[in-house]
Amino acid sequence: MKKYLMPVLCACAMPILAMGRNGDSLTIRKIADEVLTHSTAYENLRVLTKQIGGRLAGSPQMVKAEQWGVEAFKAAGADTVYLQECMVPHWVRGEKEEARIISKRRDFIPPLNILALGNSVATSPEGVTAPVIEIGSFDELEAKKDQVKGKIVFYNYHFNPRFIKTFHAYGDAVKYRSNGPSRAAKYGAVAVIVRSMSHGANNFPHTGGTHYDTAYAKIPAVAIGLEDADMLSARLKDDPSANIFLKTNCQMLQDTIGHNVIAEIKGSQHPDQYITVGGHLDSWDICEGAQDDGAGCVQTIEVLRAYKAAGIKPSRTIRFVLFANEENGARGGSKYAEVAKAKNETHILALESDAGGFTPRGFASSMSAEKKAVIQKWRPLLEPYGVYDFSEDGGGTDIGPLHRLLDTPMAELIPDSQRYFDVHHAANDVFEGVNKRELELGAVGMAGFIYLVDKYF
Amino acid sequence: MKKYLMPVLCACAMPILAMGRNGDSLTIRKIADEVLTHSTAYENLRVLTKQIGGRLAGSPQMVKAEQWGVEAFKAAGADTVYLQECMVPHWVRGEKEEARIISKRRDFIPPLNILALGNSVATSPEGVTAPVIEIGSFDELEAKKDQVKGKIVFYNYHFNPRFIKTFHAYGDAVKYRSNGPSRAAKYGAVAVIVRSMSHGANNFPHTGGTHYDTAYAKIPAVAIGLEDADMLSARLKDDPSANIFLKTNCQMLQDTIGHNVIAEIKGSQHPDQYITVGGHLDSWDICEGAQDDGAGCVQTIEVLRAYKAAGIKPSRTIRFVLFANEENGARGGSKYAEVAKAKNETHILALESDAGGFTPRGFASSMSAEKKAVIQKWRPLLEPYGVYDFSEDGGGTDIGPLHRLLDTPMAELIPDSQRYFDVHHAANDVFEGVNKRELELGAVGMAGFIYLVDKYF
Repeated sequence: MKKYLMPVLCACAMPILAMGRNGDSLTIRKIADEVLTHSTAYENLRVLTKQIGGRLAGSPQMVKAEQWGVEAFKAAGADTVYLQECMVPHWVRGEKEEARIISKRRDFIPPLNILALGNSVATSPEGVTAPVIEIGSFDELEAKKDQVKGKIVFYNYHFNPRFIKTFHAYGDAVKYRSNGPSRAAKYGAVAVIVRSMSHGANNFPHTGGTHYDTAYAKIPAVAIGLEDADMLSARLKDDPSANIFLKTNCQMLQDTIGHNVIAEIKGSQHPDQYITVGGHLDSWDICEGAQDDGAGCVQTIEVLRAYKAAGIKPSRTIRFVLFANEENGARGGSKYAEVAKAKNETHILALESDAGGFTPRGFASSMSAEKKAVIQKWRPLLEPYGVYDFSEDGGGTDIGPLHRLLDTPMAELIPDSQRYFDVHHAANDVFEGVNKRELELGAVGMAGFIYLVDKYF
Repeated sequence: MKKYLMPVLCACAMPILAMGRNGDSLTIRKIADEVLTHSTAYENLRVLTKQIGGRLAGSPQMVKAEQWGVEAFKAAGADTVYLQECMVPHWVRGEKEEARIISKRRDFIPPLNILALGNSVATSPEGVTAPVIEIGSFDELEAKKDQVKGKIVFYNYHFNPRFIKTFHAYGDAVKYRSNGPSRAAKYGAVAVIVRSMSHGANNFPHTGGTHYDTAYAKIPAVAIGLEDADMLSARLKDDPSANIFLKTNCQMLQDTIGHNVIAEIKGSQHPDQYITVGGHLDSWDICEGAQDDGAGCVQTIEVLRAYKAAGIKPSRTIRFVLFANEENGARGGSKYAEVAKAKNETHILALESDAGGFTPRGFASSMSAEKKAVIQKWRPLLEPYGVYDFSEDGGGTDIGPLHRLLDTPMAELIPDSQRYFDVHHAANDVFEGVNKRELELGAVGMAGFIYLVDKYF
């Protein structure tokens, strides 16, 4: 295209609200200019994803990523950088999983593309072979509970395309991954296959943590790619006596030592009051963890860098945290909250970026109605940067413990969500999927939001 | 990530405004459900881009694309489909362009990555070799006008990253492509090289139409990729006597016959009142034209399909138009307006989608203040679909003539713009860059908007 009407050219590069709001818009514009012209976020992400890669808790990459985080915070100009030790689970995938349809027809069927769910137990070394029962919902599971014993339960619940915000589709579907294995084990299932939580039109299986209810047997659980899920479903309709052979090699080892990586800009007036900004440093082992949550980490570092480079001196102390072990334990966030409570720290607000490095749309929050009303007044200051939606409740796995233990108000960056579940927890969550400017605009939104929190909260 | 707080699950899948607004939100929700569950837009785009590809006016692909458009409209259930003939320019690129830095140092320098600008004349068959003068702005050109004669002018004006909406950066920079050749020819330049209009961190040159002022000589003009632009700039600082050899093989042939592809849903109450919805069918020759403007074409077809499938019966006649020849002539839009004027047709509004198939953000418009106020009241009905920004003026190249000749109110879909100029008019504007759901949500926004125009305008 070429434009017929040229837009009013300087509207968005100028501090349009400056006169009316005490220079806040000027300051946010200054931060935005700093980020959009000198950001290191994209290059930081390249190093984290391409040179370190997947960094599950307990892995050698976890240690490298922590060292990287320390150096990146220092390079960004932090007043202080330190590690906060916490024990983290140490789950390993082992050799690549195997899955095959075993049919009496003996026609050729390609192997199924699967990934063990995080924290899952393995099959026995020889694998498991069993008949399959396809289950569309927990209601259907209850209705068919007498047919489950000795079988592999295949949860084929589809991501609902009618939800506009894809996180709502995820919220709707994720229970089959989290609770599906134990609910199937309750009725004697021997293993579980879960349809991946994605709209993506490809065959990447999407892993993610599962949770075993200790009341029931721990059975092996895997995710299956969408194309294979459809193929398996069609096959079972046509060939219901087909079995599946499944072999997983994962293992939960002893807890090991991980760290939250923490940097600070000391508050100029209230150094003992804290505002936390963060993402999580760990990722699943099978991907680069670029959107989940390398983006949140480099945005966090970029907020620090932009504050220092633009000469912003917050009155409260800003803590920038790369949390350990969000994906399969959330121990980093728990540790952070426990230490804050033990030290009787005063926390003003915690902000997390853990929904991808896409163009920002808004901030969700969990806090009192009075505080929410304060945040919603900031819309005119942030809408010039594409941030307009302050309607939803939200927070983040890593800052949830602080919210619960200390009643700290919490908020989360809400980026555009359409592409997130194309790559979430899958091998295609790579650096190339992140757009430099979208990533930077998220950091602009975060920096502007934190500036306003520091000043008005 | 996993979510700490689950969002209120059904909020966005439910007709939240239904009770208060006469069922409009229910109807828009019905259209959205139809698009999000049964859209053919993505598959249509795959065929247009992968089976037909680049389709510049006058090319064999133009003819194939017109046939495709007719069949796609029929498949979508149009009441009427027809072609509207118009003469279109026929510019051909010829053999791949060549460009090299010629230095006395005789060190090895890789060839420069360039593309002739659309409508440009060619160099002579043996090419042109001349010294280079780098120009940062038209002000600098005027200051250095005495140094231009006999040289190749290299406009190295950078896309400004401080603009939040990238179309503003384009509006700011595009004059060097449109007017740069003639402004340089005025002072005796022998050719022009223009830095590509992109933030993209790669070396794809971005072509686009240029316009010759008949007062001056027509000189060859090319776009250069950003990496090569930076390299050339650095080289010239260090080696100012370097020449450039440039050879282009493009040619403007006789005008030829093209067509607007038009489909209609007949109005149930006012069949002689028209609402136009469209995109442009042509694209540059060197790319698949997926974002520019395959997306707008398949969204236009999808609006038609969704109306028919959901049983929406508009009171006015909706015209769905795939315009011919936007890129290097805008003859399709001119013809459409001329015919409308000659027939004394009544046109209520024209809407164009020509800014990429990204998630929608809003609608820009050009019309009276009273009409604009009507549109802005629709925000609560469209914001559930991510459409919230009604602030800007806008329209589209293809519907501009209708606006000018008949004073028809016009509007354009405003999608998220961060990724558009990474691929605009470049070889990487391919199908793979389009996200299925983002494309569909744009069609939802367009369908909802047109529904409201038909009812309330």
